[in-house]
Amino acid sequence: MTTITIGIADTTFARVDMAESAISELKRNASVRIERYTVPGIKDLPVACKRLIEERSCDIVMALGMPGGDPKDKICAHEASQGIIMAQLMTNTHIIEVFVHEDEAASDRELAALSEARAMEHALNVIKLIEKPEALEREAGTGQRQGYADAGPARP
Amino acid sequence: MTTITIGIADTTFARVDMAESAISELKRNASVRIERYTVPGIKDLPVACKRLIEERSCDIVMALGMPGGDPKDKICAHEASQGIIMAQLMTNTHIIEVFVHEDEAASDRELAALSEARAMEHALNVIKLIEKPEALEREAGTGQRQGYADAGPARP
Amino acid sequence: MTTITIGIADTTFARVDMAESAISELKRNASVRIERYTVPGIKDLPVACKRLIEERSCDIVMALGMPGGDPKDKICAHEASQGIIMAQLMTNTHIIEVFVHEDEAASDRELAALSEARAMEHALNVIKLIEKPEALEREAGTGQRQGYADAGPARP
Amino acid sequence: MTTITIGIADTTFARVDMAESAISELKRNASVRIERYTVPGIKDLPVACKRLIEERSCDIVMALGMPGGDPKDKICAHEASQGIIMAQLMTNTHIIEVFVHEDEAASDRELAALSEARAMEHALNVIKLIEKPEALEREAGTGQRQGYADAGPARP
Amino acid sequence: MTTITIGIADTTFARVDMAESAISELKRNASVRIERYTVPGIKDLPVACKRLIEERSCDIVMALGMPGGDPKDKICAHEASQGIIMAQLMTNTHIIEVFVHEDEAASDRELAALSEARAMEHALNVIKLIEKPEALEREAGTGQRQGYADAGPARP
Repeated sequence: MTTITIGIADTTFARVDMAESAISELKRNASVRIERYTVPGIKDLPVACKRLIEERSCDIVMALGMPGGDPKDKICAHEASQGIIMAQLMTNTHIIEVFVHEDEAASDRELAALSEARAMEHALNVIKLIEKPEALEREAGTGQRQGYADAGPARP
Repeated sequence: MTTITIGIADTTFARVDMAESAISELKRNASVRIERYTVPGIKDLPVACKRLIEERSCDIVMALGMPGGDPKDKICAHEASQGIIMAQLMTNTHIIEVFVHEDEAASDRELAALSEARAMEHALNVIKLIEKPEALEREAGTGQRQGYADAGPARP
Repeated sequence: MTTITIGIADTTFARVDMAESAISELKRNASVRIERYTVPGIKDLPVACKRLIEERSCDIVMALGMPGGDPKDKICAHEASQGIIMAQLMTNTHIIEVFVHEDEAASDRELAALSEARAMEHALNVIKLIEKPEALEREAGTGQRQGYADAGPARP
Repeated sequence: MTTITIGIADTTFARVDMAESAISELKRNASVRIERYTVPGIKDLPVACKRLIEERSCDIVMALGMPGGDPKDKICAHEASQGIIMAQLMTNTHIIEVFVHEDEAASDRELAALSEARAMEHALNVIKLIEKPEALEREAGTGQRQGYADAGPARP
Repeated sequence: MTTITIGIADTTFARVDMAESAISELKRNASVRIERYTVPGIKDLPVACKRLIEERSCDIVMALGMPGGDPKDKICAHEASQGIIMAQLMTNTHIIEVFVHEDEAASDRELAALSEARAMEHALNVIKLIEKPEALEREAGTGQRQGYADAGPARP
């Protein structure tokens, strides 16, 4: 097993240090080298992710962000997501978007817990995408969720 | 008739294993080789589809996904669809999007049935696009639907 | 006058065979060669149009589609339109979008009539774009409509 | 001062011949060569503008259009604007969008007056962008409007 | 420390000269060369930013704009933001978007103060992105805001 390089792009706007949770979980589960890139806000993430791939040799990237609850913030999140998808198409490389909307949680405590849980669960997805694609295939169509309880499969 | 390679990109988020239905229907109706690629969610599908085409030689791809019923999920579906269209334009290759919105069905049982039916009907479309374009031309303007009863043609 | 090649991309989802009306009108008015490409739905049109241009040498393309009345269908139409514009920018070639929204008409009969009229009027636009640009210039700012009565110019 | 080539892309859908106003104003204020390109509707403008730049050597382009008042027309305008921005990014060339929404005016007379005024004011912007960038810099942050009274600067 | 070149793209539409505040703050904090590019409105910013990068050798760009409060202006802002993200992906270079929506402030005085504060705070982000990435990393997940009081971190 060779060492994989994982880019972690995150923001100063977010109110939880999701990178910390993601990085610990990545290191706990694989032999990884981390490239970190912090930007001001989520709209700065797409180019940061693309540079992590093209200039800092990342095999895969996690884009961690926390859109605010305001309608204007929702549009920012939409624009950032479109850019992250385009960056993936331009590089043929996965960028796993880990966004926690500030209004998903009722309190700061809940927001922190949700953010950490989602970052950690997506860290495991990142490892599966790179090293164990067959593990993802086994979960296909089973209603997996990140940060919440899984929805589970809908049985006929 | 040469063997065609069909990519199947699907997600662990979906609550029904649409890939299974699609693959059986494809094999029942043509000589195909399947390349499977499972990702966490629908926003990961565009780059997976592009890689199936460019790195795993697929002649056509099916993108199977199940957006949740929440407004946020609807926006994710929109972003994924835009990315899937862009991936097609960058590769000059069809990617047949098979999305079942979780709120299209009133129960788990209905959701499973609808998902399987839609995946199977689109599997037939995939074969027609590659091997029998004249069959699609014969159905032009006839109000075909996938997973529901056909709307049929509007007669003057 | 050399023969021009006109691509006709249409769908099996549409409930009216607009291609038939478009093709007759094109043939009645110019020396044209037709390349037909039928796909399942409007989101499959952008790549079909691009392939008509790049792989089947079309000088111009008509993209015929009929979005349903449901909000979800409206979003599909939006995505298809964005893709059709991008396909034009990637090829420097016109793709005339002829979409009839199912809810533009109150009855099947009206839907069929509107679809045929719009397809025919846009067929004439296609010929003007390729062979008689000065005819379009004469109509600039005159409130032309396709399938409805013209709005006419707003006089000061 | 060398002659600059200015592309004028407009539509037959618009109800006012904005090109006429724009062209007179351009000629009154600079030594220009005009390349005119009329298309059916605003969604045909992006590729027309790109061709004016790449195939007819325009230094800058004005895209003149008049979206209708219907929600569907608003979406068309949005798609056209996105395409016009992309065309600029693909060519590194300005395309000044001059859109007048039909519902900006209460009467035909007002619509015509607004359209002509906006086309003329933007014609002056076009000349400044090409020949007098320092004139634009002097107006930075001063609340300029086209077709309406200027908003003026917000003083602290 | 070598001199960095910072592009400043702004508009005549804006009602506050944010460039002035940004430039003073940049000069106060680093050895910079400024390239200024003023355009009419925010939809002209994406190509101006791209040209600042590709034709005037900017290492990073600030895009300063002030969308109006009207729904139509909100859509313009969305289109401009999408273009700015695309321009970054095409150049692998940061463009820091500094938009102040006219309706964020209750009075002209407040609008001017907010605009200046946000431009200055983002000027510091620009310097950190180029010269002190480790300073941004230290602020990751701490709820930084520009022009308003920081939201601060959400503690578990």
